Amino acid sequence: MLAFFTIAPTGADDHLSDYVAQMLDLIDKSGLDYQFGPMGTTVEGEWDEVMDLIARCHKLMAGQAARVGTTIKIDDHVGRSGRLAGKMQSVEKKLGRELRK
Amino acid sequence: MLAFFTIAPTGADDHLSDYVAQMLDLIDKSGLDYQFGPMGTTVEGEWDEVMDLIARCHKLMAGQAARVGTTIKIDDHVGRSGRLAGKMQSVEKKLGRELRK
Amino acid sequence: MLAFFTIAPTGADDHLSDYVAQMLDLIDKSGLDYQFGPMGTTVEGEWDEVMDLIARCHKLMAGQAARVGTTIKIDDHVGRSGRLAGKMQSVEKKLGRELRK
Amino acid sequence: MLAFFTIAPTGADDHLSDYVAQMLDLIDKSGLDYQFGPMGTTVEGEWDEVMDLIARCHKLMAGQAARVGTTIKIDDHVGRSGRLAGKMQSVEKKLGRELRK
Repeated sequence: MLAFFTIAPTGADDHLSDYVAQMLDLIDKSGLDYQFGPMGTTVEGEWDEVMDLIARCHKLMAGQAARVGTTIKIDDHVGRSGRLAGKMQSVEKKLGRELRK
Repeated sequence: MLAFFTIAPTGADDHLSDYVAQMLDLIDKSGLDYQFGPMGTTVEGEWDEVMDLIARCHKLMAGQAARVGTTIKIDDHVGRSGRLAGKMQSVEKKLGRELRK
Repeated sequence: MLAFFTIAPTGADDHLSDYVAQMLDLIDKSGLDYQFGPMGTTVEGEWDEVMDLIARCHKLMAGQAARVGTTIKIDDHVGRSGRLAGKMQSVEKKLGRELRK
Repeated sequence: MLAFFTIAPTGADDHLSDYVAQMLDLIDKSGLDYQFGPMGTTVEGEWDEVMDLIARCHKLMAGQAARVGTTIKIDDHVGRSGRLAGKMQSVEKKLGRELRK
């Protein structure tokens, strides 16, 4: 499945990029395939491994901030994998050109 | 923490209320405090118990549909509980009147 | 259509209920059918009237905070109305009992 | 502001990439800066121009499907622009390396 997620402290000052960098370190070391974007990170894997990673990211933040807002958006296409790149290639093929990523 | 979530099959026909009813049965039996709404359900509890419940709901759906879309929105205010009712009472107090729920 | 939305300042201190109360005043005066919940507000109406209301709420906040995070989740069932109450009654009917709202 | 959004028919069969391709054509012609990802598209612009584009995408879909689900996640940092690339460069700088996009 694919999971797009964001985790941010509520009430923190503006320097969110410090927190994001800490989480990306966890994500990078998880071994899961991922894609980092301006509004969130998308990871690919089975439910348990993806949700375990998101739990570790959330708890890292909740250990440093009094209040944390987390959103998760999941697309679970049973039996399919390799979709992190595959979904985009499928649309690019239909359009007949490459898209900015 | 509070978690608002929706789980729906992608590509199913229109009878989503059958699926919703099955999930509400799981939610109701979980023992967690919850509130059912027209666009999703909000549950209150600790990370592990809330995410375990959402995992069971998601897997129930993924066992019946080829593709499942799930969204989760979490507000984790460390050390606070009783917020399912409390957040609304706080706003109603400021407004000086009751709001439709 | 139904639209569930939340609007919150990023980097504000904890007193979000002041902001929420200001927005509920706008929502209440809009004349649209709505339901207030612990994790967001659901309004019912046509695209243009719903999005105009959400724009006014967002701009109210952006006039007071340097950074604003807004999420909107829309369920547009073409030709249907009265769904704010109707979706829940349909599920309650299947379950054979009333649910906490 | 940055807006991440997804628009999908509820109850359609699996060929979502046809719909996505139609919307990307609208997005591409809008002249707004955007980034296409496996779980949604991020556009950058002022509230009115971004929401006008999302409205046109939603209505394109609602003209072809009986039921449409749309989610929008906005990060409005007043007075800032060029954030589509800038947010990621800021995190990469902190980490001291490039991330997969």
